Amino acid sequence: MKRAEEQNRTEKIVALAKRRGFVFQGSEIYGGLSGTWDYGPLGVLLKRNIMQSWWKRFVEMRDDMYGLDAAIMMNPRVWEASGHVEGFADPLVECKKCRMGFRADELENNTRCPECEGQLSIKRQFHVMFRTHIGASADETAAVYLRPETAQGIFVNFKNIIDAFHPKLPFGIAQMGKAFRNEISPRDFLFRSREFEQMEVEYFVRPEEWERHFDEWRKTIWDWLTKDLGLKKNHVDDPDVPEADRAHYSKRTIDFAFDYPFGRKELCGLAYRTDYDLSRHAQYSGADLSYYDEESGKRFVPHVIEPSLGVERVVFALLADAYAEEEAEEETRTVLRLRPLLAPVKAAVFPLLKNKPELVARARTIYAKLKMQIPDIMWDDNGNIGKRYRRQDEIGTPFCVTVDFDTLKDHTVTVRDRDTMQQERIEENALAGWISSQLSLGLDRG
Amino acid sequence: MKRAEEQNRTEKIVALAKRRGFVFQGSEIYGGLSGTWDYGPLGVLLKRNIMQSWWKRFVEMRDDMYGLDAAIMMNPRVWEASGHVEGFADPLVECKKCRMGFRADELENNTRCPECEGQLSIKRQFHVMFRTHIGASADETAAVYLRPETAQGIFVNFKNIIDAFHPKLPFGIAQMGKAFRNEISPRDFLFRSREFEQMEVEYFVRPEEWERHFDEWRKTIWDWLTKDLGLKKNHVDDPDVPEADRAHYSKRTIDFAFDYPFGRKELCGLAYRTDYDLSRHAQYSGADLSYYDEESGKRFVPHVIEPSLGVERVVFALLADAYAEEEAEEETRTVLRLRPLLAPVKAAVFPLLKNKPELVARARTIYAKLKMQIPDIMWDDNGNIGKRYRRQDEIGTPFCVTVDFDTLKDHTVTVRDRDTMQQERIEENALAGWISSQLSLGLDRG
Repeated sequence: MKRAEEQNRTEKIVALAKRRGFVFQGSEIYGGLSGTWDYGPLGVLLKRNIMQSWWKRFVEMRDDMYGLDAAIMMNPRVWEASGHVEGFADPLVECKKCRMGFRADELENNTRCPECEGQLSIKRQFHVMFRTHIGASADETAAVYLRPETAQGIFVNFKNIIDAFHPKLPFGIAQMGKAFRNEISPRDFLFRSREFEQMEVEYFVRPEEWERHFDEWRKTIWDWLTKDLGLKKNHVDDPDVPEADRAHYSKRTIDFAFDYPFGRKELCGLAYRTDYDLSRHAQYSGADLSYYDEESGKRFVPHVIEPSLGVERVVFALLADAYAEEEAEEETRTVLRLRPLLAPVKAAVFPLLKNKPELVARARTIYAKLKMQIPDIMWDDNGNIGKRYRRQDEIGTPFCVTVDFDTLKDHTVTVRDRDTMQQERIEENALAGWISSQLSLGLDRG
Repeated sequence: MKRAEEQNRTEKIVALAKRRGFVFQGSEIYGGLSGTWDYGPLGVLLKRNIMQSWWKRFVEMRDDMYGLDAAIMMNPRVWEASGHVEGFADPLVECKKCRMGFRADELENNTRCPECEGQLSIKRQFHVMFRTHIGASADETAAVYLRPETAQGIFVNFKNIIDAFHPKLPFGIAQMGKAFRNEISPRDFLFRSREFEQMEVEYFVRPEEWERHFDEWRKTIWDWLTKDLGLKKNHVDDPDVPEADRAHYSKRTIDFAFDYPFGRKELCGLAYRTDYDLSRHAQYSGADLSYYDEESGKRFVPHVIEPSLGVERVVFALLADAYAEEEAEEETRTVLRLRPLLAPVKAAVFPLLKNKPELVARARTIYAKLKMQIPDIMWDDNGNIGKRYRRQDEIGTPFCVTVDFDTLKDHTVTVRDRDTMQQERIEENALAGWISSQLSLGLDRG
């Protein structure tokens, strides 16, 4: 029963995401490509707002961070050094009858195929990195991988950042960008996809100070999730990962988990990676990746704290947390209670009636002016006002501005609030300032 | 002689890009990976500013545009429909002695290897799409390609946009994202790389109106290149591409060319693609990709105008156009004359002397406050003022703010202009407003 409700809730979110232009199945008209998703116009804006919010708190507002945008394709030796070539595989079993593949660790002692009851094959290791070939000339041609994480691009550029900026410890390098994993069974909407956008920080510290920085980053992540993104606190948890479940390079890891409709699952990770990566790259590349610490007069390989997450999981978490159905004005409305700053559209402008040219003209003028002052303003004149409110509620637009006959007389417009559904009249000339203050644009400006 | 100078100019730009943290060779500590580049902290900001500028003029400021962000990996049938599987290949010859590969069309009648005078192999077609495999289960496994252009993601989502937003013709769908081409000989710094960021619009029009829209987009591109990016008009040209050189699907193409240090080369394209792509995808997918035009009462497949370019070529063009060496105060200074709005750092704040705690503290306060009001402010206290000016000139910072002993008395700071090198005293409290107005932040706000 519970399971059916959860399934139903995910389905409703997926349906809204498609219907309103947030997220479409990848390559849909060709029957899709499993584990890929395409962002529509509203999804592009939501994703951008999330990434900007992350960048602001994790990079822009700090003095100790350096941005990076490394190529997705890297020299294959990178993945030997990182341990991915050797170890980045999942245990796979296949059904001998229907030929479906499953992750053995997720079947929980099943001896038969969960789809068709067929016999399962012997477990084998399936490599999760996508592999392709680069180069045309015979001696250049090499197998390269699509990066399964952005982190290695950071470690490989550690020396470049040191040489160009001479940063003092502790400092971090941050990167947002695509990563790829050939998941055996992609599923749960955006949660487990084969192509996703990562946001990662590698924060370099003196070895003896790792615990303090680890705790600070734990707090930063928590604040970002609950304050900047506005996820409900009782839907987020941050348990320590037991040693047996940690990656081999990590001495401590916290998985920030979120209550998705299908259960509590990892949203974001914080790991203490020691000096594993830099040391391995130094060894494999022959480059000197040590750091001379002027303060202590010592030279050593810095240790690393890594806050890391994927944008797709955040998009899904935000949609799940914001999605609500409620009785309003004798009908059910669906509303996305996104934080106004994250909402794809900040305000929609309507003429009260579509067939009154003087209203339409005046509304167009107000719309054009507002759009110059605040980004992401939408024009909407389809259907009646009630329908427009419902449509804007569904996409999470915090404010709807209606231009009516009073506007022509007294230069005021009606502004309706998404959450309270209350309306108030605002001076036309004060409109942009009023909306800006509601969005806390001033306060949150990076 | 001329050629050597040009070579020299490119080398200087590459050296500055590395030294100051704009662009590094990809996977450099492993000897690189040919055709890949990593953006450092300043490159990340410059690239972001370019992409935001494009998005603003091509999408945000218009009422007829819809954003999209499709997956890089698509169903392989997409590339059969688009014609890429069949036709996206370059003519390759290899040296039998040194095994280097070359594009046959670029060798110009050479019969011997340009590197070692070895004998060349017979020309063969080399496919430019990167190929990998997706899926773990036996019946799902399929060869997929890394997209060689973002355009097809748009055509495949045409119906999704129609269904979610019911746009009226003419309208466009815009996308920014990575694309990949296994170039036979990547070269000329960022100009020909194997992984690059594209920015594309597919603009859907009534067939009989294509010429008008084509001309409008030609003007939009010209304005963006010369006004928003500020490229020198005499360095940009927009010749028609003759029929023999056009892609098979195009009835008219303009290549916007820029005077790179190594010659006049394509920076940006504008193509009339007719209804080729939508018709092919309708045929291959079975989906109905026609459009019902309420105005004319007719149903038809819209025709397409495509403005398209790669960010890497813009980054290189901007660096090349902005780079200057000049005599100043009895020494040579290198300066990047980027438009202030595009510059990675908007202002740098210095304490006059590093060893005067009251100056440093006051400068820190002014820096922290300014950073809250304007993004991309840098702190710099390394070396003397002259050295800091030279360093900021090299990265294109339009304003340097010095906090000195007068600041402690009269609350003014010295602001030095990158281009004129003139200094003026500004009230501490008026600083953010003054810089904002100089950046035309108000005017250019999207």
